[in-house]
Amino acid sequence: MAEKNWSQLWLDYSRKKHDSSLECTVKCEGFSEENRVINSAVKELKAGLFDSSLVVIIKKNEALSKESYSIKGGASVEIEAGDENGALYGAFHVIRSAMTGDDVSKLSVSKTPSNPLRMMNHWDNMDGSIERGYSGNSFFYEKDTIIVNDRTRDYVRFMASIGINGVVINNVNVKWAASYLITDRYFDDLVKLSELFNDYGIKLFLSLNFASPIELGGLEICDPLDEKVIDWWKDKIKEVYDRLPGLGGFLVKADSEGRPGPFTYGRTQADGANMLGDIIAPYGGIIIWRCFVYNCTQDWRDYKTDRARAGYDYFKGLDGEYHDNVILQIKNGPMDFQIREPVSPLLGGLTKTNQMLEVQIAQEYTGHQIDLCYLIPMFREILEFRTYCQESNDTVADIVSGRAFGNKLAGMAAVINTGNDFNWTGNDLAAANLYGFGRLAFDTDLSSEEIAREWVRLTFDLEKDLEDKLVEMLLNSREIYERYTSPLGIGWMVNPGVHYGPSVDGYEYSRWGTYHRADHLGIGVDRSDKGTGYAQQYYEPNASAYNDPNTCPEELLLFFHHIPYTWKLKTGKTLIQHIYDSHFQGYEEAKKLAEDWKAFEGKVPERTFNCVSHRFEMQVDNAHEWCDQVNSYFFRKSGIPDEKGRDIF
Amino acid sequence: MAEKNWSQLWLDYSRKKHDSSLECTVKCEGFSEENRVINSAVKELKAGLFDSSLVVIIKKNEALSKESYSIKGGASVEIEAGDENGALYGAFHVIRSAMTGDDVSKLSVSKTPSNPLRMMNHWDNMDGSIERGYSGNSFFYEKDTIIVNDRTRDYVRFMASIGINGVVINNVNVKWAASYLITDRYFDDLVKLSELFNDYGIKLFLSLNFASPIELGGLEICDPLDEKVIDWWKDKIKEVYDRLPGLGGFLVKADSEGRPGPFTYGRTQADGANMLGDIIAPYGGIIIWRCFVYNCTQDWRDYKTDRARAGYDYFKGLDGEYHDNVILQIKNGPMDFQIREPVSPLLGGLTKTNQMLEVQIAQEYTGHQIDLCYLIPMFREILEFRTYCQESNDTVADIVSGRAFGNKLAGMAAVINTGNDFNWTGNDLAAANLYGFGRLAFDTDLSSEEIAREWVRLTFDLEKDLEDKLVEMLLNSREIYERYTSPLGIGWMVNPGVHYGPSVDGYEYSRWGTYHRADHLGIGVDRSDKGTGYAQQYYEPNASAYNDPNTCPEELLLFFHHIPYTWKLKTGKTLIQHIYDSHFQGYEEAKKLAEDWKAFEGKVPERTFNCVSHRFEMQVDNAHEWCDQVNSYFFRKSGIPDEKGRDIF
Repeated sequence: MAEKNWSQLWLDYSRKKHDSSLECTVKCEGFSEENRVINSAVKELKAGLFDSSLVVIIKKNEALSKESYSIKGGASVEIEAGDENGALYGAFHVIRSAMTGDDVSKLSVSKTPSNPLRMMNHWDNMDGSIERGYSGNSFFYEKDTIIVNDRTRDYVRFMASIGINGVVINNVNVKWAASYLITDRYFDDLVKLSELFNDYGIKLFLSLNFASPIELGGLEICDPLDEKVIDWWKDKIKEVYDRLPGLGGFLVKADSEGRPGPFTYGRTQADGANMLGDIIAPYGGIIIWRCFVYNCTQDWRDYKTDRARAGYDYFKGLDGEYHDNVILQIKNGPMDFQIREPVSPLLGGLTKTNQMLEVQIAQEYTGHQIDLCYLIPMFREILEFRTYCQESNDTVADIVSGRAFGNKLAGMAAVINTGNDFNWTGNDLAAANLYGFGRLAFDTDLSSEEIAREWVRLTFDLEKDLEDKLVEMLLNSREIYERYTSPLGIGWMVNPGVHYGPSVDGYEYSRWGTYHRADHLGIGVDRSDKGTGYAQQYYEPNASAYNDPNTCPEELLLFFHHIPYTWKLKTGKTLIQHIYDSHFQGYEEAKKLAEDWKAFEGKVPERTFNCVSHRFEMQVDNAHEWCDQVNSYFFRKSGIPDEKGRDIF
Repeated sequence: MAEKNWSQLWLDYSRKKHDSSLECTVKCEGFSEENRVINSAVKELKAGLFDSSLVVIIKKNEALSKESYSIKGGASVEIEAGDENGALYGAFHVIRSAMTGDDVSKLSVSKTPSNPLRMMNHWDNMDGSIERGYSGNSFFYEKDTIIVNDRTRDYVRFMASIGINGVVINNVNVKWAASYLITDRYFDDLVKLSELFNDYGIKLFLSLNFASPIELGGLEICDPLDEKVIDWWKDKIKEVYDRLPGLGGFLVKADSEGRPGPFTYGRTQADGANMLGDIIAPYGGIIIWRCFVYNCTQDWRDYKTDRARAGYDYFKGLDGEYHDNVILQIKNGPMDFQIREPVSPLLGGLTKTNQMLEVQIAQEYTGHQIDLCYLIPMFREILEFRTYCQESNDTVADIVSGRAFGNKLAGMAAVINTGNDFNWTGNDLAAANLYGFGRLAFDTDLSSEEIAREWVRLTFDLEKDLEDKLVEMLLNSREIYERYTSPLGIGWMVNPGVHYGPSVDGYEYSRWGTYHRADHLGIGVDRSDKGTGYAQQYYEPNASAYNDPNTCPEELLLFFHHIPYTWKLKTGKTLIQHIYDSHFQGYEEAKKLAEDWKAFEGKVPERTFNCVSHRFEMQVDNAHEWCDQVNSYFFRKSGIPDEKGRDIF
């Protein structure tokens, strides 16, 4: 076979298995080897295990729940599973254990996925571009056609190996050709793609244009309560399921950032979602409805309107009105994937509605996969956050897993960070987020470090000291990025549009609702009860804690309060000195990361070394700009000099 | 004939001449009616004059200088002229007089153009786009082909009617297909265009890619002193003139904003310009060399480097080294076409070098032909500016006309504001700048008001009060625009890239050398001898006047000095209060312009009325944003409240 022009990421079996003709023995009990998913599991075990004397038995165990598995090592390794997906995940578990150096004969483990839905959302456009893509172009589309090839197959394998069971293959902003994905023009290709997905237990989902009745159907409206509109959807969805019976359902971004939606017709978000939900229900499909609804034409002069409030304000009142096969997909924070935000008060704020967590591993605001930013620690913080929606079992992990309120539909989705670059993720190290999201969504008990180490071991062959070093670099990277960018939860301060590099006032006088309100005395947005009242959207004691600058967690201080530069932080430092210190520190740490990476020359593939080296150089430049611009901006505005007399311009 | 889908601007003969079959009598003496330019003059007179009993005699008078004319009214109207161009300009003078309501039988006037070169520079790209174009796409190009049609012919007529005698038809940034303008691919079309131009006494010029030896010739360098490069140019320019014998010459942007140039090879700008000049000299061509050379990758942290200094620093030392058929084209100010800048110290700073003035009627930084901004008052200020390069005869008008130092090559060029919109200039009222530039370049003694009134009378049929009103609106518009945008000569504060709308810090931390250096105490760039020393590039007494904030003209105060917000201006107001007051005033005045325009409904063509009304609406929005953003920015930074307690955010 010709050399593939894409990497094998964490499934590079050839690294451990030098003679690919040697295969272990795999037997199936209670499962048919003809089954497409079981067949994949068998193939992966034979390809991935490098001990040809090994015998693996895949066994059905009706007592195990859906997608669960139990592995027992010994003379042979037994994978018991509740269903085919469980068997496949068990197989990947065995392979992972072998590749990371565990003795598989000693395995004894049972796993049930933490979240029923574990999804990737692609923001790929059919012209091949990717909205917020930092790793080349789409591998799903080129010039309005769908690509299904060996690379697609590897993608599917990667996703299954980390436990992903649903993929939305097109941008939530459904534009141009993507509107036609639900027409005859694309069904044949979608069937091919869907079958490839199904081989690995993954359901295909599509983003839907809510205005399809207008754009495709020639109707004049897309009012969800209009009979003609409903009839049009009934016909359309029947047509779609006739051709794509395995389709998981649809993801919908409505009434958001210029997208059409129910509000246009004076209807509620529930009216829109339930209409589609009811029509798709007979086919077993679901509707995933995004909660990213806010006024994106705000007047910056208006201090009362608060974009952070919008999700809760629009959706909380409808709690309990969404039908069973509708699930709301809620971004982790109330704004938009900043390096630090509070957890969205909708999570747990809704108690009678299916809900799932949306995070973004595409590093839109977190360094464009140039800067190193391992996001799993952030995702863990979110999952561990106590909402106090009930006395216990109230963390975000409890809620989005469905166990808090007994929802069957629940889960996690990530806006994915992939593209057709050789290494899939632009920066080789950004693959840690891709891997990590899947593993965390499957098992929310895994620590950030466990995941990082697993990924490092699967991806590289490093001696212990370098493995430790790389794990440490990953674990520190999010706080380093935070230090040299916007301070204490205020967010933004990025170049408008591109969202990379500093522009302190870039969004300050814009229509996007993303302000820092800095003046010569202080900075921050008053979201207490004396300000926009956003803090009151939380349950107690969170609401009171956030409401008071003395009890507000300091890393979120400027998100919730307008604070004087002379305010004393718990460290004893003033706010302005904290801004200076953290920025100088972050810049130094970025340089240290670049320096530390030099030790990996010759220890990782040359291509990886060079790519990552170049990215670190760019990160250092970026950190330098951030440091100097932010410090200069606040020095010029406050007139308060740096205590340590460092260069500020 | 089918209705033209472009307007006739100030040459809409049909407005006055209701029966187009009636023609005056035109006789020629000493000129051949066969001559293409005389033929055009005759045609225009017959088409444009509406008194069919009129007899016009075009007579050669060898005593008159090139391009000059003398008109005497009487029983017949006699146009005496030194050459064909003079005859054509005389003809247009008679037509203009008739159309504006003068009694042509009483005409008695002699005119010699103030400037030998009166040029338009198109920044049109061959794909049809226009760099900094605000009036649709190019009418010269579409999809890399050249357009020559009836519209081109009208364009040429318009240009001749205002005295333009040279046109550069392609963007100074010579990119893509435009590199091939000097190859066989385009010669046939250029010949057609050139002939059309020649019919109206206009010379065709081309912008040249200095790297042509590399891009077209396959050489590895374009070093102007390299023999192979010189030989390549000799062959190429021979080929060009074999095909385009009437070509005026070339405009070159070298070593500027990423364009290649002599600096790449350690050569001087003179080396580059003279090399081309020497080669083109035998063909009677000239080289127009732009002086827009500066470091566009400046570090914003660097307070010593000053973009304003660059032109003088690069070009002054070479004064006297440029060959006779080379002329330097110098932007009016040291920065880049801001609403207020000092006059470039190169103008008159050079005393032994051919030089011409470059202004921009494309409203890049002056409102995108959305906002009304009649620029002739600004151009007059520039022309009237005393450089003190010698005791008398030292104004910019003296210098660029050639009379200060006895240059034969001298003149004025404008970056043109046209496109293929129906009205040519996006905003109908922006045609006043197009008209005005040509008239002013031909006759620098004309006042801004004379030109405005002439244009209004030629373009519209208004009663006296509305005519006065429109003239007043035009005359006030530049200062209105200045009031609501960046204060006291500091410039910029625009949205990066697009250059429309406010972004106070938009260029503050960038690589472009365009900073305001505002902090909590004050604003402005110290260009005195204590700062960058730029003020010293002027002759005395200008140098001393600019050097001291107490004597610096206040409209340029922040260009030359970093001034505390509490500084008292001559009005007694503090600087900060001036910022507030002028911005509120400018916004109010913009609203007044929009209001005043309402009186023109039914008095101007409906299409014009609607177009301009819409533009004024947008101008009011723009002025509102500028006012509030600038005031809020400086209030937040200074902490000093508006004395009048108006809304600042």
